[in-house]
Formats: sequence, C-alpha cells, structure tokens
Amino acid sequence: MLNNFFNPKSVAVLGASEAKGKVGYAVIKNIIDFGFLGKIYPVNPKANTILGIPAYPAITDIKDKIDLCVMVIPPKAILESIEPCGKMGINSVVVISAGFKETGSEGAKLERELIDKAKKWNIRIIGPNCLGIVSTPARLNATFAAKVPPTGNISILSQSGAILTAIIDYAIAEKAGFSKMISLGNEADVTETEILKFLGDDPDTGVIAGYLEGVKNGSEFLSVTKNISKRKPIIILKSGNSNAGARAVSSHTGTLAGMEKAFNAAFIKSSIIRADTIEDLLTFSKAFSCQPVPKGDRLAIITNAGGPGILSADACEKSGVKIASFGDNTIKKLRESLPPICSIYNPVDVVGDADSKRYNAALSSVIEDEGVDGILTILTPQEMTDAVGTAEIIVEISKKFNKPIFTSFMGKEAVKEGVALLDKNRIPNLFFPEKAIRCFKTMASYRKELNRTVSIETSYSFNKVKAEDILCSYLKKQIYTLGHEESKDMLLSYGFTLPKNALARNSEEAITYADEIGYPVAMKIVSPDILHKSDVGGVAVRLKNKEDVKNAFERMMSNVKRYMPNAFIAGVSIQEMITDGKEVIVGFTRDPSFGPMLMFGLGGIYVEVLKDVSFRLCPVDKNEANDMISEIKSFPLLKGVRGEKAGDIESLQDAIIRFSHLAYDFPELLEGEINPLLVRPQGMGVVAIDSRFRLKED
Amino acid sequence: MLNNFFNPKSVAVLGASEAKGKVGYAVIKNIIDFGFLGKIYPVNPKANTILGIPAYPAITDIKDKIDLCVMVIPPKAILESIEPCGKMGINSVVVISAGFKETGSEGAKLERELIDKAKKWNIRIIGPNCLGIVSTPARLNATFAAKVPPTGNISILSQSGAILTAIIDYAIAEKAGFSKMISLGNEADVTETEILKFLGDDPDTGVIAGYLEGVKNGSEFLSVTKNISKRKPIIILKSGNSNAGARAVSSHTGTLAGMEKAFNAAFIKSSIIRADTIEDLLTFSKAFSCQPVPKGDRLAIITNAGGPGILSADACEKSGVKIASFGDNTIKKLRESLPPICSIYNPVDVVGDADSKRYNAALSSVIEDEGVDGILTILTPQEMTDAVGTAEIIVEISKKFNKPIFTSFMGKEAVKEGVALLDKNRIPNLFFPEKAIRCFKTMASYRKELNRTVSIETSYSFNKVKAEDILCSYLKKQIYTLGHEESKDMLLSYGFTLPKNALARNSEEAITYADEIGYPVAMKIVSPDILHKSDVGGVAVRLKNKEDVKNAFERMMSNVKRYMPNAFIAGVSIQEMITDGKEVIVGFTRDPSFGPMLMFGLGGIYVEVLKDVSFRLCPVDKNEANDMISEIKSFPLLKGVRGEKAGDIESLQDAIIRFSHLAYDFPELLEGEINPLLVRPQGMGVVAIDSRFRLKED
Repeated sequence: MLNNFFNPKSVAVLGASEAKGKVGYAVIKNIIDFGFLGKIYPVNPKANTILGIPAYPAITDIKDKIDLCVMVIPPKAILESIEPCGKMGINSVVVISAGFKETGSEGAKLERELIDKAKKWNIRIIGPNCLGIVSTPARLNATFAAKVPPTGNISILSQSGAILTAIIDYAIAEKAGFSKMISLGNEADVTETEILKFLGDDPDTGVIAGYLEGVKNGSEFLSVTKNISKRKPIIILKSGNSNAGARAVSSHTGTLAGMEKAFNAAFIKSSIIRADTIEDLLTFSKAFSCQPVPKGDRLAIITNAGGPGILSADACEKSGVKIASFGDNTIKKLRESLPPICSIYNPVDVVGDADSKRYNAALSSVIEDEGVDGILTILTPQEMTDAVGTAEIIVEISKKFNKPIFTSFMGKEAVKEGVALLDKNRIPNLFFPEKAIRCFKTMASYRKELNRTVSIETSYSFNKVKAEDILCSYLKKQIYTLGHEESKDMLLSYGFTLPKNALARNSEEAITYADEIGYPVAMKIVSPDILHKSDVGGVAVRLKNKEDVKNAFERMMSNVKRYMPNAFIAGVSIQEMITDGKEVIVGFTRDPSFGPMLMFGLGGIYVEVLKDVSFRLCPVDKNEANDMISEIKSFPLLKGVRGEKAGDIESLQDAIIRFSHLAYDFPELLEGEINPLLVRPQGMGVVAIDSRFRLKED
Repeated sequence: MLNNFFNPKSVAVLGASEAKGKVGYAVIKNIIDFGFLGKIYPVNPKANTILGIPAYPAITDIKDKIDLCVMVIPPKAILESIEPCGKMGINSVVVISAGFKETGSEGAKLERELIDKAKKWNIRIIGPNCLGIVSTPARLNATFAAKVPPTGNISILSQSGAILTAIIDYAIAEKAGFSKMISLGNEADVTETEILKFLGDDPDTGVIAGYLEGVKNGSEFLSVTKNISKRKPIIILKSGNSNAGARAVSSHTGTLAGMEKAFNAAFIKSSIIRADTIEDLLTFSKAFSCQPVPKGDRLAIITNAGGPGILSADACEKSGVKIASFGDNTIKKLRESLPPICSIYNPVDVVGDADSKRYNAALSSVIEDEGVDGILTILTPQEMTDAVGTAEIIVEISKKFNKPIFTSFMGKEAVKEGVALLDKNRIPNLFFPEKAIRCFKTMASYRKELNRTVSIETSYSFNKVKAEDILCSYLKKQIYTLGHEESKDMLLSYGFTLPKNALARNSEEAITYADEIGYPVAMKIVSPDILHKSDVGGVAVRLKNKEDVKNAFERMMSNVKRYMPNAFIAGVSIQEMITDGKEVIVGFTRDPSFGPMLMFGLGGIYVEVLKDVSFRLCPVDKNEANDMISEIKSFPLLKGVRGEKAGDIESLQDAIIRFSHLAYDFPELLEGEINPLLVRPQGMGVVAIDSRFRLKED
C-alpha cells in the first residue's frame, strides 16, 4: 500500500534546512507553503526550529507517529537512517538525494544496500535521485520544484525529474489541474507500475499521465494498465525510441521488430494513449480532465471567419475526424436563427460581425443534433466580437449537455477575459484549432477502445500437451533450430492445415507420392542443417508429371551436395501445390520486456521491401487479429482487387490467433515464422507451406 | 510598382472617424499611433479635425500629393471616389470596406465596376474586404488590427484577415519581428503573386510568410516564387486541401492527382517551404529571420538533463536530422573541460548541477567542430542553473560563429530573464526541444534546395514539329482519344523506344509478322473505340509459335465481336514480348492552376492499391526525374532486390524527362499515360508497351 506516500497525516524531513539554495530548504519550504494538512517534523541536528517550526536533532527524537519520511541527506546518512525509521514504524520514505546508481558502480552498491535494509524493515522507497512527490488532496508538496500547478484530477508520474519540472511549469501556464505528481528517480524500490496501479485505484485521479523511458516488468505493466484503461485514460510519452538494441536476428519478424515496435504494441494492448511530445501529453491530459469523452468522432465546427474554418476542415480530414452532417431539423433551426449570409452547413460560419447571440443560436442548435459528438467553437477577435459574452454562452450550454466542447479563441490580449472565463469553467481553449481537433480525435479514439466489445472467442482447442512433448524432445536432443519438417507436428497440434505431403527418400518414392497427392507438386529438401532451402537449390515447384519429379529429385540432390556437402539429408518432401492462394507471413519474436510479439504481412516484397507489416503482443484476440490484417496497406490485395476472389480472411484471423497462442504458451520458442502461409479463396482456408522456429538454448 | 503602398510619403484615409468602435476610427488611430513617418490626411465631410489632425471634407480638398489612399467608406462611395483619386494622381488604394464579391452577385458587380474604373485611372487596389496593410519601415499601420508585432525582416501576406489577426497576436507573444503585413481581401486587383514579387525584391524583407487558399495564376506564381526562393525563403501555409474537386477522370494519373497534389508539386518546383499549421508558419519564419541557414543537417545537442536529451534524439531520428558525431579534437576538449560525470558524446549532458561555465565549455568546443552544422542548447531549471548567465554565453558565442543556435529553456518563470535576453539577441528559444529540431530540419532542407546544382541537361532533341502535325491531324478528324496505335508516332518523335511490332489485318499476316519479330510475341486488338483492351479479351501474351498466333487471333476476333459488336477494328498489333523488364507507369494530368503534372509509379498494384506514386510539375529536369523515381517506397524494386539485376534507372530518368516535355509542349494534351513502360536491366533502356492520351475538345 502506497497510501502513506500520498495521504500522510505527518511528514518528517531529514535534512530540512534554513539555508536558502539548499535542497533541504526548498523541500521544507514547499511543504509549509503548500499548506500541508498534517503535522510537519523538520529533522536537523543543528537547528532548534526550521522556518518557525520546532526541529528535531534526529528522527528518533520524534515521539509521534510518522507516516512519511522525506530524506534530503547524504547517501551514507540515508543508509544509517533506515533502521531507526523501521523501528519507529515508518513504512514510506521518499529519497530525494542523488549519489546512488546514477553515479556508477559505487553508488549502485549503496543503492542495493539501501534496498536490502528497507526490505528488512518493510519500508517502501520512492527514489532515490528524484524531484520528490506532490499530492494536492493532502496539500503535500514534498519536492524541490519551484512551483506547483493548480489542483485538479490529473496525476502524473515521470522517470525524468527535469521533464517533470518542465511539465509543471507548462501546466501552470496552461492552467491544467493536478492531483498527484511523482518523480520516480532511480526506481530502486517502488516502480512505475506500482504507482500506476495506485493511481488507477485513486478516486482523486481521473486522468493518468506519464513520461517513461522504460518499464521494469513488462507483463505486470501490461496487466495493470490494461485494467486501468477501462476506467480512466492513461496517456504516456515514451522516449528512447531511437536506440533500439541491435541483436542478431534470423527472421523477417526479428528484423522488423525492436523496442519501439514492442512498446507500441504494448500501448495498443493496454489501450494506452500515446503522446508524441510533452505538449501533447499535457494538452490531451487537460482535455480528458475537463471534458466528457465523446460518444463518437463526428465534430461540429462553429467559426466567425472563413480561414480558420477551412484550416479546421483540413485538420479534420488529415487526422481522420468526421465533419458531422447536420440533421434536417438542425439545418432548419440554423436557417431560421442565423442571417442569410452565414453558412449553415458544417463548418458553420456565423461571419465576422457575429455577436454572442449569434454564437448562441448556432451552438444551441448544433449541440442538440444527434449526429454531433463534439463541438469546436472558433472565435477570431473582430469588430463586433464579444469574447466574454460568447465564453459565457459556451459555458452555459456546456453545462446542459454531455458532449465535449473545445474552443479556439484565436487571440491573446483581445480575448484574455473570455479565455479566463473558459479556463475557470474547464472548457479547454487552444489558440490553434488544429490542436483542439487533435484532442477531440484522441478522445474519440479512446471511446472507440472503450466500446470494443471483448470479442467472443470461439473456444480454441490446442493440443498443448502434444506440442510440449514435441518441443521437449528437440530440447533434449539439443536441437534448437526447427525447419518446416520438424515443426509440422507442432503446427498440426495447434490446428494448422498443412498441404498434403510425404517424405520421400529416393526418386522412386518421390514419384509414387507425387502420383498419390496429384499434380502439380512441389519438392523441398528436408534437412535440419538447411534453413534457407532455396539458396542451395533445395526447392522445386510446379512439377507436372513423373518425369518432372524424377529430374527435380536428381538435380536437387546434386545441388545440395555441391553447396552443403556436410548437411544431413533426410530426403525430400513432396507437397501438394496450391495455386489459388496469396502468400502472407506470420511470425513472432520475443521482446525482453513484453514477451512474444506477433508480426503479420503479405509475403515477399511487401514485408522485405515495403515493410508493410503490423505488430501485436501475444496472445491476440479476434479484434486484434482483425486489426493486424486490415491495418497493413496492402490489405486490399487480400480482399481481392481487379475482380479477383477475396481471400479467406476469417481463416487467416483464426490462424493468426492460433499462432499467437503457440508463441504465448511456450517461452522456449524464441522466434517463429510461417512463411508463406497461403490464404486461399473465401471458405477454403489457409495452409502453412513453410515454417521455422528457433528454440532457447539453456 | 507597388512601392507607394509600402513606402508612401503621405496617406489619406477616406472614412476616418472619431467614433470609437468604427473601423474608420481604428484605422486612423493605428496610423497615428504607430508613428507614420509621412503626412496624414483624414477625410470626413463632418469633421474639422480627427484625433487632433486637420480633416478634409473630401479627397479633392487636399491640395498636396497623396501617395496612398485608404478607403473605409461604403462601397458606392468608394466607386465614386475613384475618379477624383485618379485625377489627383493617386495610384495606390487600399480598400478595407466589405460589401463586394463576398456578399453575392450584386457585390460582385460592384467589384467589377470598381476595377474597371481603377484600370481607367491606372489605380492599383489592394482589397476590397481586407484588414489593411502594415509597413514597419514606413511606420505605417493602415489596418484595423488592435496591435502590431515588433519590427523585423519577416513579411507576411494572407488571404484571410482573421488568420492574419491571429498571426499578429501570436507573433507579439512570440516576439517575431515583421516588415510588411498584407491582408489580400478579395484580390480584385493586386494578387498574391504581385505581392510576392514585390516582397522578393524588397530589401527590408528577409523572410516571406504566407497564408494562401489558392492562387490566381499558377504559372506566374511558379516563375515568381521559383526566382525568389533562391534569394530568400518563402514559407506558406496552404489550406483548403480537403475539398479537392472531383472531376471525371479516365486514367490512373487523374485518379491520384488533385488540387492538394498539384500545390505540393508547385511548392516543390518553387522550393517553397510548406507549413502545416499557423504555429509552424510563424515558428519557421522566426527561425529563418533570426539565425543563419545551416550548411548541413548535423545537429549537436547540449543538455543539463537526460530526459530532454533522449526526447531530442528521438525527435532527430523521427524528422531525419543527423545527430552530429564529434571529431577527436572536440571529444578531447570536452573531456578536458567537463567533469567525468558528464556525457561528452552527442547529446552532450552537462548534468543537473551545470553552471554557465560548464555550458560555455561544452558550447565553445562543440561549435568549432566542422561536423556540426547547428546547435540546440537545452536548459532545465535546476538548483545550480544560471539561466541568465547561460543565455549570455550563448549570445556571445553565437555572435562569433555563422552557425544557427536554438535554445530550449524548458521553464517559464524560472528562466524568464534568460529567455528575454535570448529574445533580445535573436536566439530562437522554444520551450519544447522537438520544435527547435523541426525548425533546424526545415532550415537544413532549405539549404539542400539552395545547394541543388541546376542539373546540366543533355540537350534533348524532340521532333516537336512532327508531334504537332500528328496531334493536329487527330484534332482535325475530331479524334480526342488516342490508343497506343494512334500514339506511337508521337512517342517516337519524342525519342521513346517501342517494341518491334506490326499491324496485321488477318491471321496470315499475324503469323508472318510474328515470324519476323521472333517469338514469344504479344497480340493486341487495334481499335480507336476500345480503351480497355483486356476487358474485352483484346490482349494475348506469350504466344510461342505460329499455332498460338493463329488461335489467339481467332479467339480475339470472336471476343471483341461479342463484347463490342460496334467497334471499328483496324486489326491486331503483333508485338515483340520483352520478358526482362519491370513495369512502371508515367502519366500526366493537367491541373487548372499549374498545368501538366507528371506522375510516376510502379505498375499494377503499386499504383492502384498502394498509391505509391510521385508527382512533379512539367517539365522536369534531371534532378526532379531522379527524385520522382527514388522517393516512391517501392524504389528498391527498381534497384533490384534479392540479387536481381538493377533496372536501367538512367534511361527511365530520360523517359520521364521526355514525357514531361511532351506534356508541357502541347496544351492540347489533357491527359496521357504510358502504362506499362518497361524498365529493362541496366544499359538496355526502357520500352513503351502501351499508352493512351486524351485531347482537348474545343
């Protein structure tokens, strides 16, 4: 329980100081100035009072119960204070001081010792090396930040103290209101995920914002955030995307994956809203905290000037926001209440000489339209413009309807008072209409996530036991690379369809099996030593008769002997050739934080050259499988272009789900790929033509 | 000459008024308050003085020479004033008043009359229905805007008064300095292009910014802006992209083109910098106006906190800015001058307790590095941070080097004085480092444009006369749709290679020609009535011998008779089949503003499904042809993937240039397309397999 951090009844500050410029001064002064609701205990061996409050020479001199202890003393002194704190029953400590892991190996050692001691006494630690924490419901500002933004229902956590400082400053300017602010520092003990979980349950927190550079435990992070997102939005700015680790990879999936893709997939899985910049992080948070989430993505725009209306329509088109079409009744009302020079279609142009009454007429007609999910009211300061009166109207109407309203009062001085009124009444005003549209789009997308009914899964039956047996047998034999021959039974146990095939050891057998399967057939070399069959001449296709088969067999044997004389050859696989399918790839790689991540794309150049692929974390449900298929640019090719038959998308979905479960069920599988997976015409299923897997070596 | 608009020695205001709230009051007050350097003549029949200045009952009562007349009187009075103005020798009039074209047909008529009268008296008019104009060198503020931004070398023109008002307010807040501001209004006379030309020649204008919704004359706009861009940057926010006209089109090129693509192509042609938002428009303008254009795109980042450094590195990667690698000497200097805890590689982290000396050490080492083209200095307010001292250092160093420096002082109150110092010394400070990086990227891209050597054209010889003869003969015959057969001679006259082919009228001829050409051959129906040959069974390929040819001919004839019984059949074309080429499309369509626009893409699904195409305005030079080829995503397929031979890119360039000239030379050609154009392996050229054109019907 992290409750004592954020709702303490008493706080002790070790290292509280009266020396201006010292962190210990800034912290105690902030606690006092912000009006902490509980009792304050400055601890300083050299002072009787600190800023007028009685000080204690040592923490042990305090006889009252202490809920929270903030430490602003040198690292060694911190280590020495843990035991006394523990004995006093203190269970929550914020360590602001630096000098630990971030300074090198010596500091890292100190940090480990600190945590060992704290564990012994059941003390939880936020930090070290952090800015501190803020909790506005408790009027607690236990940071050395110069200022605190207004009170509100946004809570924010940050893995960078400097970024948090910048956000605080920006939030003050933008009048965004906060409940909790947490600088995570080195995260020696309390992690970002624990804080997220706390904020998820915190009734004072309506919106969670975060700046993250990484997560400690991917799967915990996923389960916690997935759960919270259903109740409140989480908006995260994730940085550090440019230094994706370059580990050796042997599959297409591995080549195209990476940390950035994994985080993106994780955010999608957890319905986390991703901010690209600090500005977005704060703007989105403020919008969510002030306005209701819209029911859909249809926006009405009201403006008193043409230019900004056009810019807004452009921005809607660019960001995928629908410009609402008004119902007949709305059109009628607008026609009756606005002068003929006005444009009554969306964007509604009340024209330059509009007073607040005209805005009222437009706004009150439009907001009642069932086809309108949200409204952007643009006001440019012109001669007759009444910014305050218009703001009053907007505030009044917004109170009566549960639809989000944004404003763009496109001025500074001239509309200052109007904007102040909007701010006070929690109407987000953005100078630039494009930014308001981005906010609306983000909120509408969140609604879409909330609306996603958890897809009713057909109950998938996987023969997990059989797959496990197969894997174990390979691991026992220290076989870590599986070609298609070795993988077939595993794929069958997870419900995949394979082409008819048989293993032939000589050319006579090859002909016999080919006759049985029916022409045309394909022939592929079977060898555990050969991964890239076609590179060594180990693939022959479109064999139309006995003679083709005989020739292909002989050619293949001589090819392989030439290129890989030492390879063990089990024989050749004679395969049914399916000529009516489209090649796709499904593959997975294992992300160090988030586990198996699935990739999907069309085979050949679509993956290799155009990198037209989609990613999701395993396992995926029907919705996710559907998204993976439809979000690639070459999706129309699967649906069928130029009068072609559509591919069997439903079976493809099914295969993607199955493959994702295979990846999820066996951590022993490092990477895997079915390439190609053949998508046959609608109703005819998908067939795994070739595959390979890489297993974890112990 | 527009000189009297911007450097008048005297200005008369028709409709000057003392009644607060009236536009005529705002305008005269602005002219007085801004300190106009010339003489001011208020004209008002009812006043002896206006704001303390002697007023005149009518313009004709003024006996001095008037350079500029500003009209704020009703439309009819304006019309009546033109003749007297003309007689007095006034040649420059700004009409602020509304009530013209924007109000409907009656107003449009008034506007035409106004222009007719003005033409008669050689009077140039800006407006009507505009905010007015500002010229800071003349201390002229002839607008009804409430405020004017500081003086500087940015000039701006706008087709929306409201947007200009917003920009003025935003510019004041951002301390961006302006020379001229022009609200274009209805552009009844003076157009955006004339203003651009004036600003291009104006020595007080260093940067041109603009908000445009359209241009009056595309080709003039192109030639004027292309010329200016070589001397000073033009940055334009173009809106109205979402309502592209939906005219009927019969080609791929036509389907994918449109107003938005045409403007983009025009901006590329003229090296105009495109802003996506008002914010970008102003931020980029300010950056250009304050800092030198960098020599390249390698940025050094100096920061006192890790988080913003990581965010900046991300932003560089995202926007394509190179993170500079420091030379050994720089690394050595940094190592010697910074404490060991600092990171001396880019981004340089001078860490949280950095004072101004440490910034000085980092900045002065880094700026001398020849591998550094520009610097971003990030400062987050921390305990030891000296914002003013650091700003002083930055200013001092910036004066000694001709490299752009941007700052991100990520705070408001805490760094206010430092930022004021930066502002004063024209160092652009952006709260968010990402925005500074966008500015740097934009400036570096402009440099790249400046550096583009005009490509030395091989002298192309086109047989223009022959092509003209061919076109004329079709037009005479009222043939407006040309299939490949009809287009061949025209393509040949512009230097294209066609496959060997012959027109056969019966199956015997078909066989004879096929024998001559050599197998395999293709057979295509030849009929002026059939555009989509394959839809009616009019195409046969890979015919390997006499028998194939005979069968194909008979099948084709029966097919065509069935599907298009009334089509006139000239015969079939027997064509050489080239099997070693990659299919591409080159096509053009004619944009109403900018003329012929060329499209390039890979054939088939790359154009149709993936819309992976590039556009340029005709004619294109070698650089542009090269860009068209290399900017499509599927370009690697032309270069050769998986060990394939590279296509003959040079011949493809040549073909693109030739086709663009064909389109440019003949306005009679509405649309044209070579599809497919076959790109053979390097050194083997390109071959036009099929083509079609649409001619303008009179």
